[in-house]
Amino acid sequence: MQLLKDKIRNEGVVIEDRILKVDNFLNHQLDVELFNEMGKEFKRRFKDKKINKILTVESSGIAIACIVAQHFGNIPVVFAKKQKPNSMDGSIYEARVYSFTKEQECYIRVSKNYLNEDDCVLIIDDFLASGSAVAGMINICKQANCSISGVGIAIEKKFQGGREMVQKEGIQLESLAILQEMKNGEVIFG
Amino acid sequence: MQLLKDKIRNEGVVIEDRILKVDNFLNHQLDVELFNEMGKEFKRRFKDKKINKILTVESSGIAIACIVAQHFGNIPVVFAKKQKPNSMDGSIYEARVYSFTKEQECYIRVSKNYLNEDDCVLIIDDFLASGSAVAGMINICKQANCSISGVGIAIEKKFQGGREMVQKEGIQLESLAILQEMKNGEVIFG
Repeated sequence: MQLLKDKIRNEGVVIEDRILKVDNFLNHQLDVELFNEMGKEFKRRFKDKKINKILTVESSGIAIACIVAQHFGNIPVVFAKKQKPNSMDGSIYEARVYSFTKEQECYIRVSKNYLNEDDCVLIIDDFLASGSAVAGMINICKQANCSISGVGIAIEKKFQGGREMVQKEGIQLESLAILQEMKNGEVIFG
Repeated sequence: MQLLKDKIRNEGVVIEDRILKVDNFLNHQLDVELFNEMGKEFKRRFKDKKINKILTVESSGIAIACIVAQHFGNIPVVFAKKQKPNSMDGSIYEARVYSFTKEQECYIRVSKNYLNEDDCVLIIDDFLASGSAVAGMINICKQANCSISGVGIAIEKKFQGGREMVQKEGIQLESLAILQEMKNGEVIFG
């Protein structure tokens, strides 16, 4: 998706050829207009799939998922929580994930009330790197016996293995900007 | 706003007459259609105000803020972060807040890149209780020398004092559902 690639090239900051910081439009300040274009593109790419729910994980994923949901007929968005709030009851699906950026492990959790075997889920996230967060959401969908209609990603770092994990699961993966590598502070798209 | 009040009455769960759990449409599963109606209503209530940016705090606030932003001409949304990611540089505004629901203190942070003296900010959040999160965002806006055009809240628990705090600051406060009290597991609107 050219618009997103242009944003990454013009506003992204590469740190240690390892982390792409896109706080300007995706992870801290949010460009709602861009997200709407992303929503249109996801709808085009998943147009043949039955999708009645979007699953994402807090925090940045929520922003994209909510705007994207509008392009799928205002379907509900469910976000997996990283902290267990004291008002969330015991009936939860849980998966362990590792944050590459934060270099720490955490659990993500979804209440059993919000995913079940009737659901056809589109998983949405801002980044796909090693794929740990997406693997956690796939794991949760399997626990809930729901169908996974696809995985939609804003920015994929192709060199970190997440793609292989999703493909091994036989799930359609659509990433709107695919980074082949980051080198000398520059991004090279795949 | 009747639609929101009906949702609260029909789908909200009152816990110990202290916590209102609205995971069904606001804090875990997200009702994008409802958020659009909320966006229209905020636009109506703040129609005379100059607003060029929305400030909220992760996580649930992000969902509302992004949809609301569409009703103000797709203005940027900035969300205050609760964790300090290792890719956020040192130039930040910071404020201490206390989470009533989680019974813990935390810091919220906004990069200096995303708020400045030219900004006219609408603060958006899901809940107003004691007002600690909103006070933290007001504090951050003051550090950034930006104008605060208003505070827009989905659900206000009027009996917990947040309203007085915002009014003392001389800021227009608009809450779409105001809870007078919670008693015997029921909500009573003000």
